[in-house]
Amino acid sequence: MSHAHPELRTPPALPSGGLRVTALGGLGEIGRNMTVFEHAGKLLIVDCGVLFPEEHQPGIDVILPDFTSIRDRLDDIEAIVLTHGHEDHIGGVPYLLRERRDIPLVGSKLTLAFIDAKLREHRIKPVTHEVREGDDVAFGPFDCEFLAVNHSIPDALAVAVRTDAGLVLHTGDFKMDQFPLDRRITDLRGFARLGEEGVDLFLTDSTNAEVPGFTMSEGELVPAIETVFRTAPRRVIVSSFASHVHRIQQVLDTAHAHGRKVAFVGRSMVRNMGIARDLGYLDVPPGLVVDMKVLEKLPADKVCLVCTGSQGEPMAALSRMANRDHVIRITEGDTVLLASSLIPGNENAIYRVINELTRWGANVVHKGNAKVHVSGHASAGELVYCYNIVRPRNVMPVHGEVRHLKANADLAIRTGVDPERVVLAEDGVVVDLVDGRATITGKVPAGNVYVDGMTVGGATEAHLKDRRNLAQEGVITVVAIVDADSGTLAEPPDFLARGFVHDERTFDAVVPLVEKALAKAAEEGVGGATQLEQLIARAVGSWAHKTYRRSPMIIPIVIDA
Amino acid sequence: MSHAHPELRTPPALPSGGLRVTALGGLGEIGRNMTVFEHAGKLLIVDCGVLFPEEHQPGIDVILPDFTSIRDRLDDIEAIVLTHGHEDHIGGVPYLLRERRDIPLVGSKLTLAFIDAKLREHRIKPVTHEVREGDDVAFGPFDCEFLAVNHSIPDALAVAVRTDAGLVLHTGDFKMDQFPLDRRITDLRGFARLGEEGVDLFLTDSTNAEVPGFTMSEGELVPAIETVFRTAPRRVIVSSFASHVHRIQQVLDTAHAHGRKVAFVGRSMVRNMGIARDLGYLDVPPGLVVDMKVLEKLPADKVCLVCTGSQGEPMAALSRMANRDHVIRITEGDTVLLASSLIPGNENAIYRVINELTRWGANVVHKGNAKVHVSGHASAGELVYCYNIVRPRNVMPVHGEVRHLKANADLAIRTGVDPERVVLAEDGVVVDLVDGRATITGKVPAGNVYVDGMTVGGATEAHLKDRRNLAQEGVITVVAIVDADSGTLAEPPDFLARGFVHDERTFDAVVPLVEKALAKAAEEGVGGATQLEQLIARAVGSWAHKTYRRSPMIIPIVIDA
Repeated sequence: MSHAHPELRTPPALPSGGLRVTALGGLGEIGRNMTVFEHAGKLLIVDCGVLFPEEHQPGIDVILPDFTSIRDRLDDIEAIVLTHGHEDHIGGVPYLLRERRDIPLVGSKLTLAFIDAKLREHRIKPVTHEVREGDDVAFGPFDCEFLAVNHSIPDALAVAVRTDAGLVLHTGDFKMDQFPLDRRITDLRGFARLGEEGVDLFLTDSTNAEVPGFTMSEGELVPAIETVFRTAPRRVIVSSFASHVHRIQQVLDTAHAHGRKVAFVGRSMVRNMGIARDLGYLDVPPGLVVDMKVLEKLPADKVCLVCTGSQGEPMAALSRMANRDHVIRITEGDTVLLASSLIPGNENAIYRVINELTRWGANVVHKGNAKVHVSGHASAGELVYCYNIVRPRNVMPVHGEVRHLKANADLAIRTGVDPERVVLAEDGVVVDLVDGRATITGKVPAGNVYVDGMTVGGATEAHLKDRRNLAQEGVITVVAIVDADSGTLAEPPDFLARGFVHDERTFDAVVPLVEKALAKAAEEGVGGATQLEQLIARAVGSWAHKTYRRSPMIIPIVIDA
Repeated sequence: MSHAHPELRTPPALPSGGLRVTALGGLGEIGRNMTVFEHAGKLLIVDCGVLFPEEHQPGIDVILPDFTSIRDRLDDIEAIVLTHGHEDHIGGVPYLLRERRDIPLVGSKLTLAFIDAKLREHRIKPVTHEVREGDDVAFGPFDCEFLAVNHSIPDALAVAVRTDAGLVLHTGDFKMDQFPLDRRITDLRGFARLGEEGVDLFLTDSTNAEVPGFTMSEGELVPAIETVFRTAPRRVIVSSFASHVHRIQQVLDTAHAHGRKVAFVGRSMVRNMGIARDLGYLDVPPGLVVDMKVLEKLPADKVCLVCTGSQGEPMAALSRMANRDHVIRITEGDTVLLASSLIPGNENAIYRVINELTRWGANVVHKGNAKVHVSGHASAGELVYCYNIVRPRNVMPVHGEVRHLKANADLAIRTGVDPERVVLAEDGVVVDLVDGRATITGKVPAGNVYVDGMTVGGATEAHLKDRRNLAQEGVITVVAIVDADSGTLAEPPDFLARGFVHDERTFDAVVPLVEKALAKAAEEGVGGATQLEQLIARAVGSWAHKTYRRSPMIIPIVIDA
């Protein structure tokens, strides 16, 4: 397996006729997927998503790929191909378009509708190019063929990119449900045809590469959903991902069969289901979906609500219902169905919501106690099928943390791909396909670009370290008014603490220590506000550690009297 | 089902002959298990554990039960029965013994050895009373019979408490592995005998009540562990819970069979395995366990390390190995086996460790890709067996979040327990068993008591709110030197920000706003440092929100010039 050496540098110029592949995101994390292809002086981008922060990145809204390496080549970009409409594939587009507005966006009808809605919020009117499976379109030197793939959002595409350097197949996110609701299966015949032609580089979704076997079909959720509707004595409240059109379709169909009316709750759910319905991806029986005002007047056992918040997001509808901060009040006998995954890191938040709903008397059906969710990604068994059908010459696992990429690479090797031609790259690692062989040739910047309120890229790791520190330990501001002549305290220092446990007398004990430090400094002729501030910080810091085993952030302020 | 009404108050006096049951922890969370029994003016406590904080409780070390309701009755406590040696059952004991040192601790040999080691760290020499399954001992008016139960630590006990009020059976944590390594199975014959006698109140472990079916046997992990040792080309590094003696036993046996030597790494692992070995709970073949210095000289394929850190704890051995901050350096070809669960909330930390280990070239085998862990708690199927064997008159689910308690209550009802006699209580809810019937009669304080460095109970929800705020938004200290006469700024205010994204010029824009606010105050005759500080905080806060969509904590300091 070809690893990325930790001391990689800027790569040499791409040999003429070669293809350069650089993932700026998605390799080392689940999210902010973005792959840049370079050939004959031009660039093609596949996806441009966001990553959601983890608990050690407090205050961060979303994380973007680092555009540094393409910033001075914006005019060389021929197009951005969007494989599907999930945030981790399209969420970064507004930020890239801020740098050049007229980069063409290429995608399927639903994908473009979703990105268009998002760009409207950013007041950007994009240049779009709609494609569908079977289409073959050239963007500069990149000849792109689109293939249907099945995923947890309709209308997802894989893309095959032909250049003089060879044929590359990028799956996007996919799985191989053989009985999807829309009968639009992953185009394995297409994959096979490309395999016959010869796939020089195969980039495949690694998300579930560690999961043995096969991902269940969406249709296998029917019994559990059916049971919920059959047995619920009062209202049914369903929460799921606002883009999971087929999951919602199953809920609508079941509600309809049981004579319930449905209302959508939550901004993104209302918006996305409107789009999906208008474009024909969601089939709504006449009269099924009604306004909340109509629904409220119906008997509880004729009611179904479909809402946002399945990941425990504190501002979404379901959390607010759980906290009695929503017009919809959970009452004894309500049934809540969380038809969604538990994304790692969100469990505690989700369980808090489930516990609160239970406390109000709801019966909560979720992934932990019923078969109400299947993944959108191919498991190991499906990936092996793909490798055996495509028989690629080179493989580069994409979309995953290191453990997923490694598991996917191992699968490729087990199917017979030459281990020397399996490239285990990470974000920013440059892979050149030259003379039919993919090798790592360098690295470009690919750090986290943090969106923090209105600032993009301003928040650094140092800010996050400060924030984590503040959270763990709190902060003590010390104001010392120092006599400019003597260098000693003009009056006792003032202490202002937040997040640090204290009472009125806590700081009495540290005053003599500060006095002593300043007196010693005055004796030794040490002066200047900065130096005195350091002395104070040290005195207070070591006191806090010795007395309380705590290390609060100390903000010392010395003012000359 | 009998619910706890939200407006419950202090209960009336317990009728003579009745038994009062109050859980001060463990009902509404997984952790800090503690149940107080009161009868004839005396108290018996079953377990006294700690709860580990979640991500919304930053800086907190552990969470204790609230002892308020028993604080003025410490002398009435006859004993603390410890069902087994896990932290969530014994971790609070040192804090309770600080209030009265000579409360007798009752438990099995291994449990007492674990609590004794812990108390030594707190410099407390406890009064102990060792019991074993089959023993029948009276502590004041509480006649206690102990029964063997099987759990993820050896020597766990259930306790049956006989008083004039009736017979209560408390399972502690348990499961019903029919083939445990030590052949010590949960004593269902004993449960049946008590059932024949008539169990008036049954308190059962709810942890896995939502999980359908039966918990797998510890022995079913053999194939996966065996595969690791059979195929590992170089070192095998195993991480698991430091108290899971049987899991470690399996690892030792397999290492031995494959001709590897073993060293223990990490303070708690070394300590606990020493105790377990000395007391005969861990069977170590002669010469198998060696010193690190000896192990280091052996060929890599003769080496096995057993270490702490399976939950991604940043200071534990495995995390430090992953971060190259440990004398043991992970290298290509090492195999790391995480023979442990992924406790909700720890996933991201654990996956970060797995990813780093993978990056260094290790093959990481964990619960997500192999059968290397089974739970220590009875699943729904086992609980149903228990209910049918015991046929209790009243049921009170314990040990779980609300969702688990509710699921357990539902199981009891399905087996035929009268729903009116299934008590869904939470921490602090008082349940009285009088005339053979358990009812909720009131509530006592049962909030979170936070251990925060050296302070116990000092940290409040307000501190935690501040800490979360500081983490999300950062802090800006504003120092304004104000002319005492005019009330206007003597010089431009000084800004010190941490965790808030800014550069040298950021605060230039807010200076005029502060000036304007102060000028207006002076004009209107508003004075006094506190009022001016409020004005400054408001001006800076609204500027930050308007300009950056951020809400940093503002610490304003006004100094009279």
